[in-house]
Amino acid sequence: MNFVVLTLFKDMVENIMNTSIMGRAMEKGLINLDVIDIREYACNKHNRVDDYPYGGGAGMVMQAEPVFKACEAARTKFISNDEQLTHDDREKQEDTDTASVNNDNAVRFIGKNQPGVKLIYLSPTGRTFNQEVARELAKEENLIFLCGHYEGIDERVLEMEVDDYISLGDFVLTGGELPAACIMDAVSRLVPGVLNNDESASDESFEGNTLEYPQYTRPEEFMGKRVPDVLLSGHHANIARWRREQSLLRTMERRPDLMSRVELDKKDVEFVNRKNRENK
Amino acid sequence: MNFVVLTLFKDMVENIMNTSIMGRAMEKGLINLDVIDIREYACNKHNRVDDYPYGGGAGMVMQAEPVFKACEAARTKFISNDEQLTHDDREKQEDTDTASVNNDNAVRFIGKNQPGVKLIYLSPTGRTFNQEVARELAKEENLIFLCGHYEGIDERVLEMEVDDYISLGDFVLTGGELPAACIMDAVSRLVPGVLNNDESASDESFEGNTLEYPQYTRPEEFMGKRVPDVLLSGHHANIARWRREQSLLRTMERRPDLMSRVELDKKDVEFVNRKNRENK
Repeated sequence: MNFVVLTLFKDMVENIMNTSIMGRAMEKGLINLDVIDIREYACNKHNRVDDYPYGGGAGMVMQAEPVFKACEAARTKFISNDEQLTHDDREKQEDTDTASVNNDNAVRFIGKNQPGVKLIYLSPTGRTFNQEVARELAKEENLIFLCGHYEGIDERVLEMEVDDYISLGDFVLTGGELPAACIMDAVSRLVPGVLNNDESASDESFEGNTLEYPQYTRPEEFMGKRVPDVLLSGHHANIARWRREQSLLRTMERRPDLMSRVELDKKDVEFVNRKNRENK
Repeated sequence: MNFVVLTLFKDMVENIMNTSIMGRAMEKGLINLDVIDIREYACNKHNRVDDYPYGGGAGMVMQAEPVFKACEAARTKFISNDEQLTHDDREKQEDTDTASVNNDNAVRFIGKNQPGVKLIYLSPTGRTFNQEVARELAKEENLIFLCGHYEGIDERVLEMEVDDYISLGDFVLTGGELPAACIMDAVSRLVPGVLNNDESASDESFEGNTLEYPQYTRPEEFMGKRVPDVLLSGHHANIARWRREQSLLRTMERRPDLMSRVELDKKDVEFVNRKNRENK
């Protein structure tokens, strides 16, 4: 799986992604990461990529042209042979007169809906990321993450390049780098081979829409607190039942909104009903 | 405002936080960051902090003792004079026999509910982070973020130390570092003085529960696409009206779930009703 990140903070993204699970996945060759500095496509000698917003207001807006060029540079990596011709034409045109890109309607470019490629803009205005979206993205081959900064990016380039708007949640961050890193982490874990066999993702929170049960490890007693007896019993069926009930209980207590999507078997239903009666 | 992060990936957290808005806030002295490596509190010569889960199952679980010691080390930074005595007692006891912490019920410790301090465990089982939670946390003075890895942390130390469980969203990540970084970023932006005057946070997504309007900057025409005329008009009231309507339109289209919480004035109501009629 190929990730490309378009950012103004290349070092930060590379540092994050070389750590932990992603670094391991990259070493194994399961994930390939390319980080493009949008500033390399600045179209002025001061290397500025932002300017004041039309209509006034706080903050700066990232300009269309450098973002456009960075997006196209990323898309070019995944270009198929059919598309190559179009691309070569465009390169020639740009070589002749880079500035003309602004006024030349005839310039050809790859843009959104490129086969086999998804360009994602991280924005609070996007659809909310969750484990289901992670599973969907894990099926893609080439993901490009466009990270905005300041007050956002000129709308025109977004209309031309963005395939999918994704929000990490209902909060505002300084830039798209951390959301991109979170999404790459969540998606990578679902790529076959990235997690070791003993790290299966199947028992985790949101698989089956329940929250994870509590975990314990050695020692048996810590500051007067003992591990629940059932976990020491060696009785696998009882352990599985206890964990299932703890998952259900947590979900009922902490995230009742998820309960309607949990598939309950007969024993689960009895447990849930009993707990609901107790709480009345 | 003081942040302490308890982590197994100290370098990654420091690198993230030195970048962008947080680095600037730290330089200005508005934010103080301390990163504690949980591994420094490993209680064996191999520096291991994880062990197999009781009851079997995939993955490893972080042990109670190193996490407990790291939490207490963080809490100690914020100890008041009244508490100091208790703490000194505990230090002495630990110095005498570190290993005794496991079996000595009488050991005194600070633990959760420490005045003026909130220790947050990043976990998918927590309450969901959003801009409202960010505003709540921005009022705190001392926040400690406990980042788990592997299959989680021994439940017993969580019961003793955690004041608040927060989830970044309904997805699973490798560790708590990225969520902690996101939360620190979102919270920092709300600390007075961190954003420059020209970066006011008041126009952004989720302020007033609407999504942000589209932004444009120079040039007026980019690849045949022109900036909307109203933004070039210099007519402030019309610009404000256009932006408000774009915000409402986006929220209606992309996040209809937010609409019930938006405060609408008379003109807003007319606009929303008209758009709803058009879409029928």
